[in-house]
Amino acid sequence: MDLKSYLKEQSAKVDAALDRYLPKETELPHSVHKAMRYSIFAGGKRVRPILMLASCQAVGGDTERALPAACAMEMIHTYSLIHDDLPAMDDDDFRRGNPTSHKVFGEAVAILAGDALLTEAFKLTSDPRYANDCDATARLAVIHEIATCAGSYGMVGGQVVDMESEGKSDIDLPTVQYIHTHKTGALIKASVVAGALLGGADERALAAIARYGEAAGLAFQIADDILDIEGTTEEIGKDAGSDQARGKATYPAVIGLAAARDEARNMMDEAMRALEIFGAEADPLREIATYIVSRKS
Amino acid sequence: MDLKSYLKEQSAKVDAALDRYLPKETELPHSVHKAMRYSIFAGGKRVRPILMLASCQAVGGDTERALPAACAMEMIHTYSLIHDDLPAMDDDDFRRGNPTSHKVFGEAVAILAGDALLTEAFKLTSDPRYANDCDATARLAVIHEIATCAGSYGMVGGQVVDMESEGKSDIDLPTVQYIHTHKTGALIKASVVAGALLGGADERALAAIARYGEAAGLAFQIADDILDIEGTTEEIGKDAGSDQARGKATYPAVIGLAAARDEARNMMDEAMRALEIFGAEADPLREIATYIVSRKS
Repeated sequence: MDLKSYLKEQSAKVDAALDRYLPKETELPHSVHKAMRYSIFAGGKRVRPILMLASCQAVGGDTERALPAACAMEMIHTYSLIHDDLPAMDDDDFRRGNPTSHKVFGEAVAILAGDALLTEAFKLTSDPRYANDCDATARLAVIHEIATCAGSYGMVGGQVVDMESEGKSDIDLPTVQYIHTHKTGALIKASVVAGALLGGADERALAAIARYGEAAGLAFQIADDILDIEGTTEEIGKDAGSDQARGKATYPAVIGLAAARDEARNMMDEAMRALEIFGAEADPLREIATYIVSRKS
Repeated sequence: MDLKSYLKEQSAKVDAALDRYLPKETELPHSVHKAMRYSIFAGGKRVRPILMLASCQAVGGDTERALPAACAMEMIHTYSLIHDDLPAMDDDDFRRGNPTSHKVFGEAVAILAGDALLTEAFKLTSDPRYANDCDATARLAVIHEIATCAGSYGMVGGQVVDMESEGKSDIDLPTVQYIHTHKTGALIKASVVAGALLGGADERALAAIARYGEAAGLAFQIADDILDIEGTTEEIGKDAGSDQARGKATYPAVIGLAAARDEARNMMDEAMRALEIFGAEADPLREIATYIVSRKS
């Protein structure tokens, strides 16, 4: 398969669906709807939604069924970026080369746009109009998986520990592992598990997909840490070396660049092994895992 | 019925359930779990959860079924207060006589504690352990109702317009109505509708409960506006007259105190009429409506 055209096709499908699902800017209150759309359409690669669609396909499901939940996942990812960028948090002025939400709309609207995107995600996944013949119990399980991975035991927990570790010189590997598996890993795992649930996976397939998600999620974040050091500002759309400058807890900072590269590779291999029970339907998941550790942005 | 002991009993039940459902402070990450619990147990009257339980009872349902969703509603209400109090929003140092979340835990943790409470609400309402024999389709409908009323078309929308109207001298009645029905009314309506859904209400009962919720929600907020003027700082737990001082869009500011009082009374009457199809099971809802417009705090 040609991964580049696959990603392009899938992200176009996700973009079109996001445009359909999101409140229009013409609807009240304009400011928050504008801010929600601004950050959603600010050049995200749609990694999480595409992983959800690919996982649904891997277990033999109809990917259309997973489209609303895939978009919900992008809304949650986007809300987390808006809040992370706030002055009280990472205080970032740019994201993917564009001014961050609070720089454009002010802090108050940025906070509320984040809140609204998070809420919209659950409105969308529970919307009776987008049930797509999915079993109600499976839809509840998807909501529960997403909420668990996005909340204080998942992404928010990772963000808190990341923030509290910043600038500390004595961060150990278990702490960096906690941050990475929670801050980034949790949503990636939730994406593939939700896709499998909506695709009608049995227990064995679901467990394999969850293992894939955990390994690929960690590989993704380690690759991100490495990119922050090796990528150019132009490639990664933010200041290169900014993690180092801030004293962020990263894999290269704790175990060194070479060991971090090995670990990303190990995680990718583990993700591949988890997919052995699947046939060609899982090829997109395989290609994405490879892409995750070799990408330049 | 004795409303005072009913409210005491119900709020104790809600408090105990919140304590069971919320992450423990001993669980990682401690700071955010501590902040979540701090604001949840900061003296809230549990109006929304009690309304949900009362509405479940009014349609003949077992109130135990509505307990998880009732607690979820309190989590959403509490997250909205934490975020509203932030320096970028209302910049309040005190809430119900206690220092606000960001004063105790710092802005970053306060933002994340709010995010985590909102997410936890959806985790709880979709948790298979708390299904309580409720039909999965009804549970999805509850999640959808809550998310719709909490998001940009509901509470967040009301907060945005409220903020954007602050200090403007030309606010008209439709704008104040929009703010009130969205900022406060939406969650109150969602509470009673969710209670009715979980109690197994038929279409007619559901429509009556929704009408009750809309009228009672508006009455609640107008009563709040009036309290801000007439209550003492000690009674209301925040600076009396603070709405006026800020140029907040309120009913008394737009139509005068006497007309605002009439309107609160009209809304209460409308709420009562909506309940005419119910018997004594709806007495708690009736008593609460009366209490809403006569309360002193």
